[in-house]
Parts: sequence; structure tokens; C-alpha cells
Amino acid sequence: MDPTALQDLFERVRRGELSSEQAVASLAGLGQAELGFARLDLERRERQGVPEVIYGPSKTEEQLIRLLETLAQAGQNVMVTRLTPEVGRRLVELRPSSHYDADSGLLYEESQPVARRTVAPVAIVTAGTGDIPVAREASRTLELLGFATDCLFDVGVAGIHRLFAVLERIQRAPAVIVVAGMEGALPSVVGGLVSAPIVAVPTSVGYGAAFGGATALMGMLTSCAAGVVVVNIDNGFGAAMAVARILDVKAGP
Amino acid sequence: MDPTALQDLFERVRRGELSSEQAVASLAGLGQAELGFARLDLERRERQGVPEVIYGPSKTEEQLIRLLETLAQAGQNVMVTRLTPEVGRRLVELRPSSHYDADSGLLYEESQPVARRTVAPVAIVTAGTGDIPVAREASRTLELLGFATDCLFDVGVAGIHRLFAVLERIQRAPAVIVVAGMEGALPSVVGGLVSAPIVAVPTSVGYGAAFGGATALMGMLTSCAAGVVVVNIDNGFGAAMAVARILDVKAGP
Amino acid sequence: MDPTALQDLFERVRRGELSSEQAVASLAGLGQAELGFARLDLERRERQGVPEVIYGPSKTEEQLIRLLETLAQAGQNVMVTRLTPEVGRRLVELRPSSHYDADSGLLYEESQPVARRTVAPVAIVTAGTGDIPVAREASRTLELLGFATDCLFDVGVAGIHRLFAVLERIQRAPAVIVVAGMEGALPSVVGGLVSAPIVAVPTSVGYGAAFGGATALMGMLTSCAAGVVVVNIDNGFGAAMAVARILDVKAGP
Amino acid sequence: MDPTALQDLFERVRRGELSSEQAVASLAGLGQAELGFARLDLERRERQGVPEVIYGPSKTEEQLIRLLETLAQAGQNVMVTRLTPEVGRRLVELRPSSHYDADSGLLYEESQPVARRTVAPVAIVTAGTGDIPVAREASRTLELLGFATDCLFDVGVAGIHRLFAVLERIQRAPAVIVVAGMEGALPSVVGGLVSAPIVAVPTSVGYGAAFGGATALMGMLTSCAAGVVVVNIDNGFGAAMAVARILDVKAGP
Amino acid sequence: MDPTALQDLFERVRRGELSSEQAVASLAGLGQAELGFARLDLERRERQGVPEVIYGPSKTEEQLIRLLETLAQAGQNVMVTRLTPEVGRRLVELRPSSHYDADSGLLYEESQPVARRTVAPVAIVTAGTGDIPVAREASRTLELLGFATDCLFDVGVAGIHRLFAVLERIQRAPAVIVVAGMEGALPSVVGGLVSAPIVAVPTSVGYGAAFGGATALMGMLTSCAAGVVVVNIDNGFGAAMAVARILDVKAGP
Amino acid sequence: MDPTALQDLFERVRRGELSSEQAVASLAGLGQAELGFARLDLERRERQGVPEVIYGPSKTEEQLIRLLETLAQAGQNVMVTRLTPEVGRRLVELRPSSHYDADSGLLYEESQPVARRTVAPVAIVTAGTGDIPVAREASRTLELLGFATDCLFDVGVAGIHRLFAVLERIQRAPAVIVVAGMEGALPSVVGGLVSAPIVAVPTSVGYGAAFGGATALMGMLTSCAAGVVVVNIDNGFGAAMAVARILDVKAGP
Amino acid sequence: MDPTALQDLFERVRRGELSSEQAVASLAGLGQAELGFARLDLERRERQGVPEVIYGPSKTEEQLIRLLETLAQAGQNVMVTRLTPEVGRRLVELRPSSHYDADSGLLYEESQPVARRTVAPVAIVTAGTGDIPVAREASRTLELLGFATDCLFDVGVAGIHRLFAVLERIQRAPAVIVVAGMEGALPSVVGGLVSAPIVAVPTSVGYGAAFGGATALMGMLTSCAAGVVVVNIDNGFGAAMAVARILDVKAGP
Amino acid sequence: MDPTALQDLFERVRRGELSSEQAVASLAGLGQAELGFARLDLERRERQGVPEVIYGPSKTEEQLIRLLETLAQAGQNVMVTRLTPEVGRRLVELRPSSHYDADSGLLYEESQPVARRTVAPVAIVTAGTGDIPVAREASRTLELLGFATDCLFDVGVAGIHRLFAVLERIQRAPAVIVVAGMEGALPSVVGGLVSAPIVAVPTSVGYGAAFGGATALMGMLTSCAAGVVVVNIDNGFGAAMAVARILDVKAGP
Repeated sequence: MDPTALQDLFERVRRGELSSEQAVASLAGLGQAELGFARLDLERRERQGVPEVIYGPSKTEEQLIRLLETLAQAGQNVMVTRLTPEVGRRLVELRPSSHYDADSGLLYEESQPVARRTVAPVAIVTAGTGDIPVAREASRTLELLGFATDCLFDVGVAGIHRLFAVLERIQRAPAVIVVAGMEGALPSVVGGLVSAPIVAVPTSVGYGAAFGGATALMGMLTSCAAGVVVVNIDNGFGAAMAVARILDVKAGP
Repeated sequence: MDPTALQDLFERVRRGELSSEQAVASLAGLGQAELGFARLDLERRERQGVPEVIYGPSKTEEQLIRLLETLAQAGQNVMVTRLTPEVGRRLVELRPSSHYDADSGLLYEESQPVARRTVAPVAIVTAGTGDIPVAREASRTLELLGFATDCLFDVGVAGIHRLFAVLERIQRAPAVIVVAGMEGALPSVVGGLVSAPIVAVPTSVGYGAAFGGATALMGMLTSCAAGVVVVNIDNGFGAAMAVARILDVKAGP
Repeated sequence: MDPTALQDLFERVRRGELSSEQAVASLAGLGQAELGFARLDLERRERQGVPEVIYGPSKTEEQLIRLLETLAQAGQNVMVTRLTPEVGRRLVELRPSSHYDADSGLLYEESQPVARRTVAPVAIVTAGTGDIPVAREASRTLELLGFATDCLFDVGVAGIHRLFAVLERIQRAPAVIVVAGMEGALPSVVGGLVSAPIVAVPTSVGYGAAFGGATALMGMLTSCAAGVVVVNIDNGFGAAMAVARILDVKAGP
Repeated sequence: MDPTALQDLFERVRRGELSSEQAVASLAGLGQAELGFARLDLERRERQGVPEVIYGPSKTEEQLIRLLETLAQAGQNVMVTRLTPEVGRRLVELRPSSHYDADSGLLYEESQPVARRTVAPVAIVTAGTGDIPVAREASRTLELLGFATDCLFDVGVAGIHRLFAVLERIQRAPAVIVVAGMEGALPSVVGGLVSAPIVAVPTSVGYGAAFGGATALMGMLTSCAAGVVVVNIDNGFGAAMAVARILDVKAGP
Repeated sequence: MDPTALQDLFERVRRGELSSEQAVASLAGLGQAELGFARLDLERRERQGVPEVIYGPSKTEEQLIRLLETLAQAGQNVMVTRLTPEVGRRLVELRPSSHYDADSGLLYEESQPVARRTVAPVAIVTAGTGDIPVAREASRTLELLGFATDCLFDVGVAGIHRLFAVLERIQRAPAVIVVAGMEGALPSVVGGLVSAPIVAVPTSVGYGAAFGGATALMGMLTSCAAGVVVVNIDNGFGAAMAVARILDVKAGP
Repeated sequence: MDPTALQDLFERVRRGELSSEQAVASLAGLGQAELGFARLDLERRERQGVPEVIYGPSKTEEQLIRLLETLAQAGQNVMVTRLTPEVGRRLVELRPSSHYDADSGLLYEESQPVARRTVAPVAIVTAGTGDIPVAREASRTLELLGFATDCLFDVGVAGIHRLFAVLERIQRAPAVIVVAGMEGALPSVVGGLVSAPIVAVPTSVGYGAAFGGATALMGMLTSCAAGVVVVNIDNGFGAAMAVARILDVKAGP
Repeated sequence: MDPTALQDLFERVRRGELSSEQAVASLAGLGQAELGFARLDLERRERQGVPEVIYGPSKTEEQLIRLLETLAQAGQNVMVTRLTPEVGRRLVELRPSSHYDADSGLLYEESQPVARRTVAPVAIVTAGTGDIPVAREASRTLELLGFATDCLFDVGVAGIHRLFAVLERIQRAPAVIVVAGMEGALPSVVGGLVSAPIVAVPTSVGYGAAFGGATALMGMLTSCAAGVVVVNIDNGFGAAMAVARILDVKAGP
Repeated sequence: MDPTALQDLFERVRRGELSSEQAVASLAGLGQAELGFARLDLERRERQGVPEVIYGPSKTEEQLIRLLETLAQAGQNVMVTRLTPEVGRRLVELRPSSHYDADSGLLYEESQPVARRTVAPVAIVTAGTGDIPVAREASRTLELLGFATDCLFDVGVAGIHRLFAVLERIQRAPAVIVVAGMEGALPSVVGGLVSAPIVAVPTSVGYGAAFGGATALMGMLTSCAAGVVVVNIDNGFGAAMAVARILDVKAGP
């Protein structure tokens, strides 16, 4: 896909190092491991600057172990998201080189040391205590990518002085992740007080008219604070990945 | 319906002033004017302490004029809600004793002077400028019921210092109506700063994921500020009536 | 947040009792207990006239015990909502100074005696038997706030004489909470018979087109009885808090 | 489709009056007029006891005139539903043998006299004035089918004494059509007071959380009054047809 | 509520048999048993021609036993709907005079013999095998009310010859209940072949875009067959009650 | 994209006919016309066997004329969908080589003769008269692709003998498009009678619970007839394209 | 239903081989086995070219065994869909002539050998690993109908080179089934690269805004690739049946 | 709000330059212009680095002119969004110092020159031609903030080679805005090819199951490409503001 890689390929064909059939085949299979049930991207780190990430819920334990093995053999770091403690612990037993973090539901295995980023800590703010697991998914993901985080929990808008008590810490951050369920109002308030990028994460905390997080989601999308962006309900991982994209801009050459 | 009225009726039957047939008939037709297309409640003021209110949109001009006439003849004040300027002005032409207020869409006719209430002004707060027509419906309704209002517009949460600039005025009010569209976050913030009753009114201001006010409505219903109550989308009239019920409690004997 | 508190702070700075740095810090941390997973409001009673209330479902038992301890040490009453009997009983074992009420799902701990209010009992009316747990959450909350309640269950509109049998008791109340699932029609009928404030609580009782309470919710919001206000589905606690706000208006100076 | 008609056909084949090919063809085309854009049922009256009814909105004026002509030639009565006054009047100009009723939006043409039914009048009750056009569609349809109607408008539940004033008239009816928008609570109340069949018609009257009649529809479907049945939003015609099915049961041989 | 009963009451007051206070009290408590958690209608059979019916799911076993006892003492038949086999059997153990029918989820107790109706059997038709439990709730309810039923299962529209195989039996019925999940198309087809009243019952059979029965419900409401009426999803009981209302019309004096 | 084309490219690089830079550029721009507001696919006919199709509603008349010109110059046939008569006629005035068909809303221009396909006519069946415009979009699209069609309108399920009257014609077709609004039941019935591929098209015909075609759409997706496939609401064009894909399978080498 | 069968029947009546009563009866019961809870179609294979398929979830094990027995006695192949491993294995124990495939949830019994089709393998492509069970339902169904399949899993659009690696295999297929959850984007991309018929299957893989597959479903219906058709969420079986209809067109006489 | 500003204020009180009353008042009114219908933020540029932006649709022309005047007098740049050409042109007539851009619906007035940013152009990519107006809102907003943009229109996924033709330009951008309606699949594909921050904008382009942009919105939120963030439907302005927040991170001190 990458025009440079493609041009290299053409160049090697032109120099006779590769037949055109080999080039087509190589183009197709480039950097993939085909496991039958999955097609692993062994060069993702190069292309995206991040380790391979595996969405855990829809896979069997056998499939997960196979994926961990394959990526480890390719010398690549790996994260698996949204594992229950039960599954997480069973996987660690089967594969002691991996680590499971029950707070965030993440399992990870680091074949290579992760370089620490020099940027200031990312602020991760929650409206309530119930939003903490989603915030933990975000903070742990960022840490696995080399970023520091500053977690500020339970600062919701109904007692707004709680927000002001920590505002200075939020204002120091290069990017802010705001996690809130119920009416999801916190990103609007934070968005008016902070000029950094703000990624809002709705959560499924609440009942009745919270509709499993849909109300918080829609509320964040219609936020009157300009430039607030939103990810899927409970998607702490996605928010962290968005921040990584954002801060890599800053750290870029 | 009123047990006292019913007991009176029984008493008059017992004293022979009324036959039982007359009593049943009287019970049925008590204080109503039957106009064919409508059944007017000529004793509402007694029972509910408010003038008769007519929902305007689903009635023809002929029907509205008939209703105004009938109530005026019964010496009762009347309000008609949600009239377009076009219809409102045509009705005033046909019936010069009525008044039309284009800001709120209300037409009214006062056969009897309205007693001014002694309570402090009700605060009516909007998040944005677009919410003002709904706020005007609320404030004008309250004024027709004898209450004073203090209107505070465009104090939305994305620039929260705008709220603090007027907070003291809000805190002085015996009841607060908070009007907001889009994500509808303002009642949550106000609810945490004020201990008075708060009636939240979602508005249809916004687009896309605002879903015509449904997002603001659901946001307000799931507010993390305890004890905030909600009325229908754009229902400034209903909010005013709720406040009237609330403050009549206070002013009660 | 409170302008008076703020002015005091300025005054103390002016008098040299506080440096400006201390003032800013004090402003931020004012009356909060920071527990890592939660930011407790130790001065809520002063500001809102009510004890701190904790939403139970999204917290671990360890977190709940920590919160109870902290608030008790601050001499503040506390309520935890929506606890299953299982969790409720385990918490009482761990903390014998607390009480659990299985009917309402509330756990509470009273460090200070609650002053009884002198106002007449609040009427709490349900349409059916299935709505009783929500009504109990409301009545128990009101009792913990010092209000008396008068519970009237199973008076739904399909046998309307059941309502008339208890109407006089409802009409005596300074405020009425109406709890109903399915089509949620009861608040409309009560709203036309009573001039007191009416807080409608939709419940998730019903199946199919009841859509988990959404139908009752929408029905109550579009009630043809003017001035009826609505809280979230199954939110008996919220209705009680709204009534407390309303009746505190009455009892105000 | 009718087994008797089918057996007749077999019988005629058996007697040699028809070849089997003719029988198949006759079976297929039985009593239909094929107009290209429509397939008219010329024997409906026999099969269903009602004239052919044409849903107006999705047809051109040319198509409507063609349909009226074809049915008139077949000696069959016809109704067209939901025509705007504009279209209705233009059709009457083009075809003076037809009649248009602006109150109900119905256009009809009676080639044959309609037999008056001997049953007592059907009660048609509306909650508000805005529901009247839907009620008119129902009453006019019933009249075109030979049934008498008793219309009782604006008896909604928020002033329930209005309902009691007309209850006796409702209780005399062999079937009741209840038309209501907004929260759609009236059928629940009527359903508990009347043992006759009740057909509930939700209307699109209302705004905001009325969601174009969906709230009234869902409310009626979850009615706590047993045995209330429901038709589509604003479908006065369908309610009338349901009543015709019901009362024909009674009048059956 | 009943004008005749009311007139009697007035008459007795007039004759001095009752004081007006007694009359008001009697009016209010007329024929009700107040159990705290429920208000039983002990005169329902007189007013509606049916036994008291109790919606089972939202009541505790203790409450159900209390209700059964009270109604039996009043000499009234009773049905409880939607009980799981587990609960049903436990109740029968506690109260051996009651019967539980696992196919329909109904528990019933007949203090008085039910008079058999002379009308032909009601046809109960299902589209598939999965719809049978709902059909059984309808047929068993009708039987408890004295009506005979003719059940025709699995005649869905995708193999329409299955419908024609039983059409004659359907056409003999004085009323038809059509039960269908998924796309809910069967009532439209039956509605075109039968002139009797048709009550359509959507079921929650299906997955994905069946949305728990909402698709079948909406499909039935928009049926192109005129005069089809609809009840709530899975509401076999409600359909039976509607048919009882309909056929009582026929059997009326 | 096409591996063969890619291999050709490599081959030409290998033979020195192309530099690798030229190859990359050629790969990128292959067969596209870049117009600023649009990127036209000038080789679509080769790749997909169909002319370029332009979705009309979201383009200005200027843009449409530019697109028609460019494609005509490339010798390619073109269709524009969903044009109102107003716009359609204005475009024909501006560009007399194009044709507009008001029945289907299609405008087309044929630079090259379309080869007639030898397959039997595709059956296009509608439930009602209101569904005809959508059916016309499908039939006209198929004709522009060289297929014959057999249109059978108004054969809806509520008078199922209308369907049987034309069943033989439907059964002769190699593929069937079934177009229906309201409850969308027709594809289920046809699907059980015909073994050919069936593409169901829901339409927005209907009101109230038809929800703009969503009910028909969901009904078709949950059809109990196996193997029925569905396209978007009112998407006659898409259904025709699906049939073209299907019948091209048959005609394949 | 089949006109030819009907004509045969008429012919036999004409020849006196059958009385007209026998003909009607025969017409009705033609080829059905009536089991009380189900009406089995014993001639389906003739009419539709496929074995009888039974939707498993809404049937009891007793019912399933009865259905298997009846169809086996009629010499017909049978498939049961969507059985959990628990139920599947219990049925195989009870009926050892049947086979259960846990990957697809299908149980089947082949009384007659299935003829292998000569067409090239059908491509079954999934976006992710979680979509595999749905794909397996499709592939196993096709195999039971005699078609070969080529499964290509985990080729989702976020790493589009994974798709290109297998594109040639997809392009060789006579029909393509594309299975995807979450945003359901894969059919749009495949639809632009392949001219064969494409059946898109949305899956319930995902969380939050995936809304149980509704987002993927709606995305596929609005695909910008023309001629993509869609089946219900998770309906791998339906997609296979659609492909069978399509390829039988090709293989037709 | 800003702790530094607050500390300054305390400091001035401490130094006796301000009384504590003055400090409180100053705190409240800081940098606001109160216009009755709006509360303008005259210091926004300082706090957020952007001019004041006014949401146009819900304001009258008189209000808009007042806002423009006030901001111009304060020497602040201003943008008004979503104005129709009609309103836009009328405003320019009334206020010739302002400019209206019909492509984007933006009106703006620049009192101060905008500093050009040195960062590479932001890529703005649309799936189709219909998405261009939303893209123009984004690009024009960015230009008013000093950023350069590179617009790439009509590169949607159904002809994916169109995307590859412009991929290199997209890969050069420091941030990418992807605008798409219908199924909204483009951000998923771009997200896998580019490591820069990606802001996805769903549009209301499409019909039927596009549900006014909700399908595209939900599709983008469930994108399988990690780290894609989303704004409201048609919210080109919001996407631009998000990019400004992101790129200001990079350009920060």
C-alpha cells in the first residue's frame, strides 16, 4: 500500500531481482501471518508506530494463545483488550511471559522494551467512580505505548468545585481524555476550560434513560464546546490510540 | 370528583333539594361547557388556581375564537399556546380584547385582574440564544399567573464563567427553570450549585445527534445532579406550570 | 462556588490571614476528601441540606466501605442506593453501624439525628404492585431526609374507582410522587385532580412495547395534565430528592 | 381462495362445463380488474361485506379517476381515504357523481344504496380537539358502511369529570373507538369502565416526546386495561373497519 | 362509576337509609379489598363479565398467595399470568386448590363453575412452532372464560399452501387470533381471506432485525388488510380478552 | 487493483518499457478522470460490466452536466438516478443527447448501443400502486443494462388471489424483484412460491408505524422465506444492479 | 399453488378420477405432515430444490426429534439451525443417524446423497475472527446443499492489504458472501472490486454503538457499492440460501 | 476560572488595590459582554487561541448584526456558521465589513490579520461529491484559523483505486479530516493506511437506512481502525476545531 514500498518492489523487478509473479505474490502476502482464523499484521509497528492489538471478546483461548505465540516469534509487542479476570488469568498460566491487568482488562506481552515518551502526562479525567475501569483501559494502553498519564477520578459536573480543585493539573496536559456516563456533560465543561485536544469517552454507567451509554454518546457529540471529539461507548482503548496519533504528531520529525 | 362537592350533592339530595336523577346529571355536567369540538372546564381556576389553557396548534381559528368567547363569558382568564405570528395576529384582529405575544407564541385574554405573588422572581436560565423562545414561553406563562421572573440567557456550560457571573441571581430564586438544547448539560451544573427546585426543559436546538431535542431530554433525565426534574422538549409552558404548582405549595394557607 | 464563601476568602487574604497561594489552594480543595477513586463532598449537608448520597451499582464493596468510613468520620449522614440484598447484607456485616433496607435497596448510616419536618406526609402513589420497590426507594429516601410519607399502592387507571377511594388522602399531601410502568397514565389522571406538585416516576414494569420503561417515560413527558414533571426510569430516589427541594422551598425562611 | 368457490369450479369441470385450462385461468383472474397500475377487486363486497377502499396518498389523480370509473361500472361502492381538500375537490369536479368530505378527507361514490344497520350507535371518543379529524375518518367510514355513530370529543383524562359526564353514552355503545394523541391514556381509563370491544387509535397530535404518535401507540399497546386493541397511528379508517368486522359478527346469520 | 349504582346510592341517601358521609365512603371503597400492596376488585365479574386477572411477573410468591386467598374467599374465579414452571408449581404446592398450566404459564382457581358459551370455536393460528406458547396463553384464557378454541399451528406465509389446508376451519370461526413473530406477515394474508374480527399478536420469536418482536408489531400495525387490530408483543392473554369483549357483543341481550 | 493488470505493469517495468516511478504513477491514476468535485471511473464498464451510475440528489446541475460530458467523451454510457422532473428536464435542455424518464426519475445517455441479454424477462412485482415509482427505477435500470422486464403491479398479500393470478409469470422469471411498503409481507409469500433469486425492496409507502419504510425493511430482513435478500428503502436501482450481478453469473463464460 | 399441479388436479376431476370434494381436500393437505405443533413440508425439495430446514431455537428437544423422524421417514434430508453444543449433542445421542457441527451450530441428517455442484467454490469472507461462527453457518449450509466453499477469514478494511492478499481467490468465485460486524464496511470495498453477486451478512460482533449488529446492518444497506444485497444480522444460513437461489439460476436447465 | 488569573486577583486584593466585593464582581463579569440575548466571550482568543464562533441557525438577523458589531468593537475576529445564502447575503449588505462564503455557509469578519501556521496542509477527504459542503465548512474554518488545507474529494471506498491515487497526498498531512455519508466506511480504510490523527465527520448524505447520517455516525464510532475519532453529523466546523486543538499541541511553546 505504501507507495515507497511499492516503488522498491518495482525497482527490484526492474533490476531482475524478482520476477513479476514473485512481485505480485510478495505484494499480496507482505508482512502477514495467515493463521486460518486470523491474518496477523507483523509489520504494524513500522506502519503505525504501535504494537499489534487484539480485540479479545470474540476469540477463543486457543486462538488467543496462537496469536500471542506468533507475534512473540516475530519479535513484536502485543496487547489483548477486554479480557475477564477469569480468561486473563488462564492465559497467563498458559503463557507466563504475558501479563494481565485486572483493572483494565488488558493482557500484554512485551518482546521489546517500550521507549518512554518525553511529553508531559496525558490527563485522564472521569466524571464518576463507575467510569474508572474505562479510564484504566485508556491509561494502561497509553503506558504500554510509552506515554505517562495523570488520572483524576470522580470530578463530575454536579459538584463543579471538584473539577476546579484539579483544573490546573488538567491544564498542564498535552491532551485530555474525559470519561463520563449518564448525561456525559463533563467534556463540555472541560472543553471550555482547556485548549488542548479533548477525546471524550462515553460510558455505559447509568440506567433507564442512559440507554447503555447512548445518551452520554449523543450528548458528547452535540457538545457546545467546539472541537471535542468522541469515540465509541466504553472505548478507553480507542481514546488512548487517538491520543497516541495526536501526540505522535507533536513528537514527529 | 372533589369529595367535598360530592358530599354537598348528597346532602342536597338528602334534604330533598335535588332528585337523585338531577344529582347524577349535575354530577356529570358540573362546570363544563360543551361546544361540540371541545368540553371547556369553566371551574378550573377554582380547582387548580390557574386559568384555562388551550393548546393552539391542533385547532382551527374558528374553534379558537369560540373557545375565547365562551371563557370570556364565564369570566375566566385564558391562554392559548404555540401560535405562529400569522395566526396570533389574525386572532387579535378578530377579537381585539385578546393580546398576542410573538416572542412566546402566547395569546391571552384577562377577564379578571391577576393577583401578583409576593414570592421572589423565578430564575429562567438558558444555555444559548436559540433556547430563548422556549424560555419566553415559560416566563410569559408565569407572569400571566402572577409570578415575577428573572431571565438569564446564554450562560451555557462551555464557558462556565458565564454561569458564575450570574450565579448569585440564580441562587436568590425560589425555583429555577433551566432551558438547554444540544447536550443539555446546564441543569446538571446548576443542580449542583443551587438547592432550590430545578425544572429542566430540553429544547430542539441543535442538529444531527441532537435528534430534535431527544439527546438533551435523555441527558437531563440522567443528570448526575439529584432531584432535577424534566418536562417535554420545548415545553416552556409545562415548566412554568410546574413552578406554579411548586410555589403555590409555599404560598398555601 | 458560593459567592459568600469566596468573598470571605478574599476578605481573609485582604486581612493578611492567608497568602494568595493558600487562598487558591483552599478554594480548590474546599471541603473535599480525595480518596483516589472518589472525591467526597464533606460539606454537602451545608450546601444542599441533604446527606451525601452514593450511587451503589458501579462501586466495589471495598470502595463502598471506604466511603462510609470517611463520611462517618466527617460526622455526615450517608445513603447508598440500589444495593442488592446480597451486597447490602455483606456491607452491614462489615460495618455494623450501617442499616440495610431490602425493600428499597438502600443502605444508610446516620451519624447525626435527622430533624423531623413538620409538613404533612408526601403522598406516594403507584399504579400497580410491581411499582412498589421504586416507591419504597422514594419513601425511604424521604424518611431519611426527615419527611413523612403516605403510601398508596395499586390504584392504577384501569379501575379508576380505586383511585377515587384514596383521592382524599392524595389531595391532603403537599406534594405527590406518582409511580407507574406500562403506559404510565396515572400521573395524567392525578394531575387533573390535584393542584400540588406532582413528580412522575416511570418504571420498567411491563414487557414488549413497554420497552423497559421508555413508553411510560415518554407518556409521562407528553402528559396532557399541565405541570407534571418527570424523572428517570425507576428513579424513586430522584423523585424524593425533587420533593425535598420543593418542600424546602415551603419551609424556607 | 374460498373453498366453496373452488369446489364449484371443480364441479363445473367435472360436469364438462369448463376445461381444466379454463378453470385455472378463471381461478387466477376471478373477479379482478387489471388496470396496469392496479388490480381491482370487483367482488370484495361479496367476500368482505364492504366496498372497495382505496388508499389515496400514493396515487395520481389520473389513477384515482380510472379506479372510480372501473368500480362504478362494476356497480360497486367505493371510498378513497386521506385526500387533501385540494385533491378532493379536483376529483369531484372531474367526477361529479362522487362526494368529498373535507372533515374526514374521504371521497366516496355510492352506486348502490347502503343498508342501515340496526345496531346501536358506535361511540367514537377523543381525548382532545386535535384528535377530531381522525375521529371523523372513523365515523364517516362507519356511516358509509351503514352504521350509526355517537361522537364524543375532548373528554381527555386530565379532567376526568369530562369523561364521567358522557360515560353513560359510551356505555350504551356496542363498540367504542377511542382516539388520543400525546400520552394516549384515555383507552386505559375507558377500558376499565366499559365491557364492550374497544379499538384504540393513537394520533400524531403532540410534539417532542410524542414522537409523531409513537408514544401514544406504545402507551395504548401496554395499556393496563385488558382486551384493548390498537390500530396504526391516525388510522381512523382502520378502526372503523375493525368495528365493522366486530359488529358483523353480531349481525351474522 | 356506574351511573346506575350512583343513582341507587343517591336514592338511598334520599330515603334516609344512608348519611351523605356514609355515601361518600361507600362510593370510595365500593367492592375493593385493600391488601396494602394491592387493591383487589371484588366486583369485577359483575362489571366486566370476567374473573380477576393478576399479572404474575412483578409480584412475590407471598403476594400471589394472599391475592388467591382473598379472591377465593370472595367467591371469585382468578387467573395469574406469566408464571414460570418453577413458581407455578411452588404456588400449587402452597395452595392445592389452584391449577397450573405449564404450556401457557397460567395458574387459575375456579371457585365457581364457568358457563360454556354457545358460540363456535375461536380460531387461534400461529405462523410457526415458536409462537405456540403465546397461542396457548390465548387459548387457555379463552377456555377459562367459557369459550371453545380451535388451534392451528405453523401455517406461516412462506409455505402458503399450509394456510390453505386449514382455511376452511379458520373461516368457520366467529373471531380469529393470529400469532406471528419475525416479519409478522400472517395477519395480512388471513385478513384478506376472512371477514371475521382478527386480533393480531406479534411475538418475540426471531433474532437480529426482529428486534424482540418490534418488527412483527410494526408490521401488523401497518398491515394492508383493513380492520386488523393488534395487541402488545407476546400478549396472548390480551388477545383473548379482546375476543371475549367482541363475542360478548354478539351474545349480548 | 486487478492482479492481472498489476502483473502486466510489473512485466512492463521488467522489460524496461516503464520506469518504476512511471509505474507507481500509472497505478494510481489508472482510468480515472479527476474533475475536482468528482473522480470518474472511466473503465468501470470493463471492470463491472455496467455503465457509470451517478447518484443525482447531492449534486448541482453544473456538476451533473460536467459529469455527463466527461463520460460521453470517454465513450461510456451513463445513468443519473433520482432526479426530480424539474431538474431532469432542465438537464435535457442543456444536453439534448440525454434522455429523462419521469416515471423512474432516471436520466441517461447512451454513447454505445446496449447489447440485449438473451435471458427471460426479470419479474418486478409490487404490493401496491404506490410502490410503482420504485419498481420503475428498477425496471428502467435493467433495461439500460440490456435486460427485459415483466412488471406486475398491485398484487399485495391482503387479496392473495391477485398474486395467484400472476404467479405463473413470476415463476417463469430468472430473478424476481419484489417491491413493497407498509408491512412488507409480499417477499415472504413470493419467496415460498418461487425458487429463483428474490431481491426485496422496501418502500417508504405508508404512514405512522411504517416509519418511512423502516418497518417494511425490518420485516423483509426477518422474512421466514429462506434466501430472500434485501436492499435499502426505495432502492429500485440497487435491486436492479443486484439482479444484473446475479444474471451475469449465469451468462458468464 | 403450482398452476401445473392445480391443472393436473382439475384434469383428474374432469376424468372422474377424483370427486370435487376429494380435490379440494387433496389441494389443502398436499404433501404436508401435520404434527400438531408443526406442519411439515414433505415436498419442499421438489418445489425449492433444498432440504427442509428447521429453525432450532424456539423448539423443544421433543419437537426436534419428532421433526427429524418424520422427515427421515419421508426420505428427505434435513438441517436444524442454531443449536447450542449442549442441545446438539443431546439430540445426536437420542438420534445417532444425525450429525452435529459445533462450529456452525447446525445439526443435519442426510437420508439421500447430496449431488455435488460443478460450479467453482463460493467465497466466504469475514472482516474479523469474531465473524467466523456466522461464516461457518453459511459454509456448512452451502456444503449440505452440494456447493464447495472457499473461506477467507479476518481480511477487514482497516488493514486493506490483507484483502488484496486474497483478492484473486475472491475474484474467482461465482458468488461472494461477506460477513462483517462493527461498522460493516467490508462489503462496500469488496463490492467495488468484484462483479459477482455479493451477499452481505452483518454480525453482532462489537459493542456500544454497534448496537448488536444494527450499525453493520444499516451500513451494508447504504453501501456505496451498487448491487450489494443484505440479509438479517448473524444470518449465515440465509446468505447461503440466497447463494443457492443465485447459483441454481446458473445451473438451471 | 484560570488559576493564574485568580491568583492575580487575590494578589491585588492583598495589596489593597481591590476590595473583596470588587474582586467577586470582577471575577463574575470577567471579559464578558452581556447583550441580553447573548453573553459574549471577549477574551476567547486569549484563552483558546481562536476567534469567537457563533452558531447561526438559531439567531435572528438583528441578533447576528449585534454580535458582529460587539466583537468587532472588541477587536476580535468572528465566524458565523451555517447561514443560508439568503441570510448570508443580507448580512453582508447590512455589514459590508463581513464576508460570506456560500460554499461553506460561513460568514466571517477579520479585525486582525490571521497568522499563517507553518505546518503542512491538513488533508480533507470526502467519500462522495455530496459530502463537499461539509468539507468546505471544515476547510474554510481551518483557513480562518491560519491553517492550509489540501482537499481531496470523491475518493470513496467502492472504487478503492481512487483512494490509492491520492494516498500519498493524504500521508503527507499532519492531520486528516475524513468526510463521508451513507455507510461511512472511508475513515476505517484511511485509518489503516495513515498514522496521523484522523477526525471522521459523518454526513447526512444518503436516504432510507442512512437515517439522516446516523448510520454513518454509528459506523465511524465502531470503526475497526483504532484511534479514529468522530464529531457530530455534518459538523465540518467541529472537525476543523478539533484539528486546530491537535495541531496547536504540535506548535505549542
